[in-house]
Amino acid sequence: MTLLLGVDNGGTRVKLLLAREMEGRLEHVRTADAPTPRGPSAMDELAALTRTFLADDRADAFGLTVAGILDEASGLVATSANMRWLEGLAPARELSDRLGIPGEAVQDGVATAIAEAVLGAGRGADDVFVLALGTGIAGAHVVDGSVRKGAHGGAGEIGHIATGGGEKCTCGQSGCLESLLGGTRLGARWDRARGVDAQSTALDVVLAAERGDGTARAILDEATTALANGLLSLMAMIDPGVIVIGGGLSNSPAWIIDPAIEKAHRRATFHAVPPIIRAQLGSWAGAWGAVLTAAHSRSGERRLERTELV
Amino acid sequence: MTLLLGVDNGGTRVKLLLAREMEGRLEHVRTADAPTPRGPSAMDELAALTRTFLADDRADAFGLTVAGILDEASGLVATSANMRWLEGLAPARELSDRLGIPGEAVQDGVATAIAEAVLGAGRGADDVFVLALGTGIAGAHVVDGSVRKGAHGGAGEIGHIATGGGEKCTCGQSGCLESLLGGTRLGARWDRARGVDAQSTALDVVLAAERGDGTARAILDEATTALANGLLSLMAMIDPGVIVIGGGLSNSPAWIIDPAIEKAHRRATFHAVPPIIRAQLGSWAGAWGAVLTAAHSRSGERRLERTELV
Repeated sequence: MTLLLGVDNGGTRVKLLLAREMEGRLEHVRTADAPTPRGPSAMDELAALTRTFLADDRADAFGLTVAGILDEASGLVATSANMRWLEGLAPARELSDRLGIPGEAVQDGVATAIAEAVLGAGRGADDVFVLALGTGIAGAHVVDGSVRKGAHGGAGEIGHIATGGGEKCTCGQSGCLESLLGGTRLGARWDRARGVDAQSTALDVVLAAERGDGTARAILDEATTALANGLLSLMAMIDPGVIVIGGGLSNSPAWIIDPAIEKAHRRATFHAVPPIIRAQLGSWAGAWGAVLTAAHSRSGERRLERTELV
Repeated sequence: MTLLLGVDNGGTRVKLLLAREMEGRLEHVRTADAPTPRGPSAMDELAALTRTFLADDRADAFGLTVAGILDEASGLVATSANMRWLEGLAPARELSDRLGIPGEAVQDGVATAIAEAVLGAGRGADDVFVLALGTGIAGAHVVDGSVRKGAHGGAGEIGHIATGGGEKCTCGQSGCLESLLGGTRLGARWDRARGVDAQSTALDVVLAAERGDGTARAILDEATTALANGLLSLMAMIDPGVIVIGGGLSNSPAWIIDPAIEKAHRRATFHAVPPIIRAQLGSWAGAWGAVLTAAHSRSGERRLERTELV
C-alpha cells in the first residue's frame, strides 16, 4: 500500500487530498482546504499546512499543481500571473526539502485534464479530450493517462482555432471559439447587444435566457453553434474516443453544453461522434491530478482506478 | 543487408521500387512503373509484373499500397472506389501467396505521409504533420514514423475543420477549408464568379492569376487565407514540429503555398510556427511509404534514413 498526497495550489484555495493506492486502485483517505499561502514565505506556510494535514501519516510521494507555465524538465516555474513568488523556483523541490517526501510538480490544467480523463468522466477510455470552459477555453488530449503536449508544449488550444470570423479574440486572432464562448465574452456581448455597460457575467446571460430574454438567447445560440463547430473540428482533427467538458460554464448544461452537443450531433457528417460527457470531479479535479502525478513519479503508473468519490 | 520492395498500386499506374536497407539506411536500387492491372485477374498480373521487376533479386519483404479503406487488423479492403475488385480481398496476402515473399498492406495516404515525414521533407523530425492538397485535402500526423489515426481511424481531417462559414462542402458541412481550396472547387468558384460554365481546373485559375486576372487572384487570395487559418488551427490544436505540404496544388507554390505560409506567419499570435516545407518525394512518395511498411513488417523499425533520392 502507498500513501499519495495531492496538493492543488490554486489561485485562492490550496486543496489537500490524501489517497491510498493498492494494486492499481486509489482510495480517498481525507481532504482539507485553506486559503492559498501568498508571498515570499508561501512555501514555508504551504509546508506547515501540509504537515498539519498529514499529522501522523507518512506520504510516500506528493504531486503539486502549479498555476503558471512550468518547465517540466527542470521543474522550474517560468511565469505565474497570480503567484509571482513562484517564478524561478522549483516548487516541488522546495516542498520536498521541507517535508522530506519526494514529489513532482504538474501544471494545473494538465492535472485537471488527466484526473478527469483517468478517474473522472473519461475513466475506462484510453483516448480522452478534456475541454475546460471558463473565462478562457482550454483543452488537453489525454492518451493513456498522459497529455499530448505537441512539439513546443502548445497543443490542445481548441479555444483558438482560427476561423477568420469577425469577433476579435484576446489571443489577437479573429473568430476564435473563445471570442464567442469565453466566460467574460458572453457577458460583454450581451451588454453590447443591449447598449448597456453592466459588466454582466456569463451567469447573468444564462439567467436572462432562462427568464426568456431574446437577446441573451440569441447570444447563447451563437456561442453554442461555435462550440458545436469546435467539437466537430476536434473530431475531424484528433478523433478522440471520449470528449469531457468541464469548467464553470459546464455548470449551466441546459443553456451551453446540451444545445452544443445536440447541434454537433445534428451537423455531423463523416465524423465519428464519441460520447460527450460533463466533467465529474468538480473543484477536486486538480487535487486528484496531483495524486496521479505523485503515483506516476513513484512507479511510472499513469492509469489507476478510483474506488470512491471525494 | 535486406532487400525491400515497395509496390504503390495507384489508380492509373503501379510503381515498383526496390531498396536496400543496411544499418538503418535505405538505398534506392531501381524503380519501374506500368499501367495498373485492373479487374478480376489484377492480382495475377500484379504478381507477374513484380516477378519481372525483381528478376534475380530476392526481396525479403514487400509493402503494398491500397487506394481505399483498409482494415489494418485483418488486412482486408473494405471499400475502394477505383478498384472494386480489391473489395473483400486481403491484397497483401494475395500477393504474398503468389510471390512467396512476406508483405503488408498500407493505405495509400498513410504511405505517402510516412514517406514524406520519415524520408522526405520531414526527415530528422519526430513530429510531422503532412497535408496533401489535391482534389480534396487530406492530412496525417506522423509521430516517430507512425500515423496517429485517432480513436475511430478518422484523425487528420484538416480539410474539414468546421467554421460554419457560407461555402457548402462535399462532406455536407459548411465553410470547410476544402470547400475553398479543394482542387475542383477553385475552378468551380472561378467559373461561378465569372458567370461561365467552363469546368475550369485549379491550374486554369493559377494560370489566369499569373496573367493578371483579378477574379482569379481574389479567389486564390480567399483560398490562401483559408489555408493560413487551417495551418494556424493545426498549430493551436496539435502543435506539430514540422508541417509538410504536398499534393498537386503544392506545385504552384507562388500562388498557393507561399502566400498561405506568409499569411500564417503574419497572423500568428501565441502560436509556435514550425518550419512549413514543400513535400519532396513527388509521385514516388507512396512507393517509399510501401518500402517503409516492408521494413516495419520485418523488423519493427519505423525510422530509417535514406542515402539518395530516386
